[in-house]
Amino acid sequence: MRARDLAVEFPTVTLDTPALEAARLLADRDLPGLILIGDDGLPHSILPGTQVLRLAVPAYCQDDPALARVVDEAHADRFLHRLDGRTVRQCLPEEPRELPVAGPQATVLELASLMARTHSPLVAVVAGKRLIGAVTLQSLLDHALQL
Amino acid sequence: MRARDLAVEFPTVTLDTPALEAARLLADRDLPGLILIGDDGLPHSILPGTQVLRLAVPAYCQDDPALARVVDEAHADRFLHRLDGRTVRQCLPEEPRELPVAGPQATVLELASLMARTHSPLVAVVAGKRLIGAVTLQSLLDHALQL
Repeated sequence: MRARDLAVEFPTVTLDTPALEAARLLADRDLPGLILIGDDGLPHSILPGTQVLRLAVPAYCQDDPALARVVDEAHADRFLHRLDGRTVRQCLPEEPRELPVAGPQATVLELASLMARTHSPLVAVVAGKRLIGAVTLQSLLDHALQL
Repeated sequence: MRARDLAVEFPTVTLDTPALEAARLLADRDLPGLILIGDDGLPHSILPGTQVLRLAVPAYCQDDPALARVVDEAHADRFLHRLDGRTVRQCLPEEPRELPVAGPQATVLELASLMARTHSPLVAVVAGKRLIGAVTLQSLLDHALQL
């Protein structure tokens, strides 16, 4: 089994998508993460669900979650409002990350290695200059457990 | 809203659970991760789904997923068989990780900060010496998006 056989269509967002809309897509469709398409039509970033939270969580809280305690409950509940009126591009952290992207020939073990290494329950499958779909952790495990 | 209000019952495994059974639980129940209970009844580890893969993926492939390419397709497909006959304890990596564990009073922002920082779509909620449940990324987002 190769990546091309396991890849399924997957919703994408662009860097100009409103950040709140991206968070809503993740929640409403119960996705393991988001594929952000860059201006060249290829994956610019792949954000595991936990890293979508990083768009909204202040950096000082990520460095030390105990600091989040100084924010009162009412404001803490509304932390996603930091995304209001901002695009995904405006919320993305600066540092580049290793992208969980594989070619269509990648084996199940390659996909699993990439997921483990990048902490991403989602790998984008790219053939040449085209995104052909994504492999999720769930579909990978479902396949591997049958054998 | 506090962690105690968002926490729901969550299946757990112990360090002596067969590793393959743990992987199957994750896949069959479509869980975002696993809570491993230690000998003292408290969370010993919380493994996000991607880190459950680490139980089975050889270390050299995690260091460099390109090395996974030397394994042929038939063997790659069967990578989970490395777990055969081994318990979770026997497969766990040595290095300790920061545990995504919160108290019942933790706010939504604290939970989000912990998930972002530890790359875990799952936070265990512990009161005193007792696990009272878990908060998932999905339930956190569902709550935050309503406000």
